[in-house]
Amino acid sequence: MSHSGYRGKGLEFLTKNKIEIGDLVKVQTDSTYSGILMPRYEHSDDGHIVLKLKNGYNIGLQIEKIIRIEAELHPSTKKENRAQPQTDPKLPKILLISTGGTIASKIDYRTGGVYPALTAAELNASVSELSKIANIDTEVLFSEYSENLLPEHWIKIAEKLNSYSRSEYKGIIVAHGTDTMQYTAAALSFSLLGFPKPVALVGSQRSSDRPSSDAALNLISAARLLVETDTNGIFVVMHNSISDDDVACHWGTRVRKNHTSKRNAFQTIGGSPVFIVKKDTIEKNPLFNPLKKTYSPRINFDNQVLLVKYYPGLDPKLIDYAIDSGYKAIIFEGTGLGHVGKIMYESIVRAKRKGLFIGMTSQCIDGIVRMTVYDSGRDLMNLGVVPLGNIIPETALVKAMWALGNTKDINEMEKIMQENIVFEISD
Amino acid sequence: MSHSGYRGKGLEFLTKNKIEIGDLVKVQTDSTYSGILMPRYEHSDDGHIVLKLKNGYNIGLQIEKIIRIEAELHPSTKKENRAQPQTDPKLPKILLISTGGTIASKIDYRTGGVYPALTAAELNASVSELSKIANIDTEVLFSEYSENLLPEHWIKIAEKLNSYSRSEYKGIIVAHGTDTMQYTAAALSFSLLGFPKPVALVGSQRSSDRPSSDAALNLISAARLLVETDTNGIFVVMHNSISDDDVACHWGTRVRKNHTSKRNAFQTIGGSPVFIVKKDTIEKNPLFNPLKKTYSPRINFDNQVLLVKYYPGLDPKLIDYAIDSGYKAIIFEGTGLGHVGKIMYESIVRAKRKGLFIGMTSQCIDGIVRMTVYDSGRDLMNLGVVPLGNIIPETALVKAMWALGNTKDINEMEKIMQENIVFEISD
Repeated sequence: MSHSGYRGKGLEFLTKNKIEIGDLVKVQTDSTYSGILMPRYEHSDDGHIVLKLKNGYNIGLQIEKIIRIEAELHPSTKKENRAQPQTDPKLPKILLISTGGTIASKIDYRTGGVYPALTAAELNASVSELSKIANIDTEVLFSEYSENLLPEHWIKIAEKLNSYSRSEYKGIIVAHGTDTMQYTAAALSFSLLGFPKPVALVGSQRSSDRPSSDAALNLISAARLLVETDTNGIFVVMHNSISDDDVACHWGTRVRKNHTSKRNAFQTIGGSPVFIVKKDTIEKNPLFNPLKKTYSPRINFDNQVLLVKYYPGLDPKLIDYAIDSGYKAIIFEGTGLGHVGKIMYESIVRAKRKGLFIGMTSQCIDGIVRMTVYDSGRDLMNLGVVPLGNIIPETALVKAMWALGNTKDINEMEKIMQENIVFEISD
Repeated sequence: MSHSGYRGKGLEFLTKNKIEIGDLVKVQTDSTYSGILMPRYEHSDDGHIVLKLKNGYNIGLQIEKIIRIEAELHPSTKKENRAQPQTDPKLPKILLISTGGTIASKIDYRTGGVYPALTAAELNASVSELSKIANIDTEVLFSEYSENLLPEHWIKIAEKLNSYSRSEYKGIIVAHGTDTMQYTAAALSFSLLGFPKPVALVGSQRSSDRPSSDAALNLISAARLLVETDTNGIFVVMHNSISDDDVACHWGTRVRKNHTSKRNAFQTIGGSPVFIVKKDTIEKNPLFNPLKKTYSPRINFDNQVLLVKYYPGLDPKLIDYAIDSGYKAIIFEGTGLGHVGKIMYESIVRAKRKGLFIGMTSQCIDGIVRMTVYDSGRDLMNLGVVPLGNIIPETALVKAMWALGNTKDINEMEKIMQENIVFEISD
């Protein structure tokens, strides 16, 4: 039995009543409440239990005032009764790979606390509409929140996708946490350049036990993107508005998470999404021309890249630290059109002398870095700092890791970083 | 005579014709061009001269094809003829302090190259509409691009403003570069808490020699904010749209530069601007209630704060470097709701043991950090990481520098960082 966080009187009360975390319970106090028993934080008092109500809110109930508590239904019972999706031989096949995140959260579903443990098969089974769009095979690659993912995870995902590049699947969905989804999307875009099938990274901003969850619609829209369009490449498929009206398919190198909690947190920077999935149609952005490149996977990353946001008061010794620590590249998030203060120049000269690549993006996030307008920018270019157009800083970082994974030559590195390889530079 | 960048044939040609950089010239080749002679970059060929045309574009003209070149008017002559603004004793008095930036650029005005050298007096004289709004005294504090400003410059500006806190001026305009204007706005907001007059930081995104320059309208709108409203506090006054229809007055702790070049690059994050200056009216945001605090200047900053954006592959040794280098605080730009990967935990524990303050913001920029939703966040809070609400990362950094400048006590520091002092936390 799981009683995480409960102790003393609270633990005693739950044990006596044979209630454990995740149980759907009915509690009678001054009023009657129905909800899921939640885990508690350490150091909580032992006089309350916490329920997650159906409206998504948590409520603390004083044990002394509880007249009666009983389990209504164990979610495990519920799960076993769940029907497995049917297959229809006329529908196309797609693959659903889960890597973790809110969208693939199991304990979230049970308790409102969120742990990445739901399998791809369960995810598929939980959204019945999917079986009308495609026959979906499922596979668990790993179960991690995306804040814990590292470049080695990008490599695992890329190698898995690569192994299916010539498969019978029409496309592949990757269920992924939203925290670092944009980094993974960029990593796959570069390392699987020209991938012949569409790949949809899908997450959810609200866990599936909340009425406002975006998990199901995002999954359905991703499946529709794969089945109803004739495209390829890496996309992030997430709500386009705060309503359930449309879902955006963002290009993998131009997407950014711009809100901590909104369902439409993901936005295309410097343009519009490639596709908008609506109730009856999928609208294509007429300005977007599909990438016609031969598939040439290069699944290597070298994470010796330091991302530095410049700010007033930043100690230039940080650059010296990067040199001394063996970093091979620095991506600046400069100010405005791509500047850092004069105070950094000496350290930049030293870094260039040691052979580091130094690329310039802007902390403004949107817009183009133009280093020829002001003498600050021209000075930096003379020192060897390379302007990187309107690439998103995070994408520049991933691209630099990928470039370093594939070449040790600084000139080649500079060439790669300035080349528009997979629409990461949109002008 | 200035001929920066010209050499060989080009230099000879200009010397012979007594033309120097900044001259307005008429050039006859296959067609006739009128424009300002621009400086050239080093390593340019010596067979062309470059003119900035009236439409703002630069054109390169081959010297061999030039039939005639003549100076139309020296800008120095033009400047001497410029009328000084008239004073009207019935109008209120405001003070215009210049610190540099595109808005106060002199060489920009002459050549299209941009150097911060125009004085506040010249700035005032160049916008004739200002004299109808107020009698403006002017003062040059320094002349720097804002990417070169440091916390010591914030202190200079704050002390200057403080010296005028009981003056006859209705309000004060600070002309400032846009690159780090948001950092200065935050610094003044904290250090001059409750400042009894309105202060408008004003910049321009397009230099004043371009037809699309926003300098004049931003200045006029700032003057109107000071004269026509009855407010106080620190504002950033910049274009609100790409047209010339309205200008936004952003609250100093909630504003961010979100585009490298657009005139409406500045945006209020997590809300709307406090005022919108329109042609005939100034609209106030009804949700904004003025800050009623006694003026209590505390003009101290300690820049031993490291801003760290978390990303997959970030080496946790960066935190150890911060500890070893004597940093007193770390502001994380975490992912999503305020997370960093588990890989950072050990270093965070060491940093906390050494007494560093560690605050959490989100690289999503918009939205609230909520560290109780996922176990990642709860783990980090247990390690002593402090969630900072929806404060903008750059404002959090400035606030931490200010807090450290005013207390050495870590508990006091934690209290200050979580307190909503000057609307930096908007929920």
